[in-house]
Amino acid sequence: MAEVVYYVAASVDGYIATPDGAVDWLSPFHTAGEDHGYAAFLATIGGIVMGRRTYDQVRGFGPWPYTAIDCRVVTSRPLPEAPDRVTPVASPVEALAGWADRRVWLVGGTTLLDGFRAAKLVREYHVFVMPLLLGAGVPLFHAGPPAHLRLVRVDSLPSGVVEFRYRVADAEPDDAMDSPASS
Amino acid sequence: MAEVVYYVAASVDGYIATPDGAVDWLSPFHTAGEDHGYAAFLATIGGIVMGRRTYDQVRGFGPWPYTAIDCRVVTSRPLPEAPDRVTPVASPVEALAGWADRRVWLVGGTTLLDGFRAAKLVREYHVFVMPLLLGAGVPLFHAGPPAHLRLVRVDSLPSGVVEFRYRVADAEPDDAMDSPASS
Repeated sequence: MAEVVYYVAASVDGYIATPDGAVDWLSPFHTAGEDHGYAAFLATIGGIVMGRRTYDQVRGFGPWPYTAIDCRVVTSRPLPEAPDRVTPVASPVEALAGWADRRVWLVGGTTLLDGFRAAKLVREYHVFVMPLLLGAGVPLFHAGPPAHLRLVRVDSLPSGVVEFRYRVADAEPDDAMDSPASS
Repeated sequence: MAEVVYYVAASVDGYIATPDGAVDWLSPFHTAGEDHGYAAFLATIGGIVMGRRTYDQVRGFGPWPYTAIDCRVVTSRPLPEAPDRVTPVASPVEALAGWADRRVWLVGGTTLLDGFRAAKLVREYHVFVMPLLLGAGVPLFHAGPPAHLRLVRVDSLPSGVVEFRYRVADAEPDDAMDSPASS
């Protein structure tokens, strides 16, 4: 089964973007010369999945940043002038087709995460918590099925950012024989 | 000004109780003989504030647990047969009257927190994050005013619980989102 990781930055009050989708509030926590392990994380990733709104937003930021990684965009509409290695797909399950041995970054958004959670396809939550209350915005989590997690890492950075890594306990290797679609 | 601390346990997806208010999902993370610093925390507290729903719930748990500390319940209704040292008050501001030199535990709930946040009366967020997704419930935070926080502690316990302490930055201009957090 693909190894799906929800890797994202959030505020203490659990938002990943302002109500209009902006993430520029993250910028003050980017320290020059310090990537918070991003390059090392990206080196483990064999595929990227995102929702359409996230895709449109990343496209708006400038040059496509994931030129070296296959990316699937879950959408019901065509992707005109998509960058190389970017493909539209119809569902979370289709987004992982043929990627059984890949580690996959679920970039967002929250509604796409809902689909992966409902299908028990998320293996890891890797969250960077910024030291602020954003007050309103796009939630890190919607309501969804409960799950037991196993803390594998917590670290704090000089900027006050806290990094969490949780594995989904219900989806650990012992349970690998269960079909995600039927469990 | 009173030193108000929101000290609470939550799930990774940001809930402090199930939809019906239950907190028994916290029990598996209570290690025998380990209080997670609770006694030391309580020794710093000179007053307790809670909302009516929280009060009614604590009353339902059994004997009143805060016999040694003054407690004010923000409510519009009488408190029949209230324990000693428990007083009804009408508002967050009234809840702190005369307590300028006390450290005050804001026990809950989230709506009462909203009132304290709106009045910029919260000085610290001290949160224990349990390693699970609860899926639904009473939120740790509602939408509210933005604020910069300063991380003063993050620690993990053998049970996988993560403990956070954030101080609310002393200066909180309305345009706080435009300037970097100082740490």
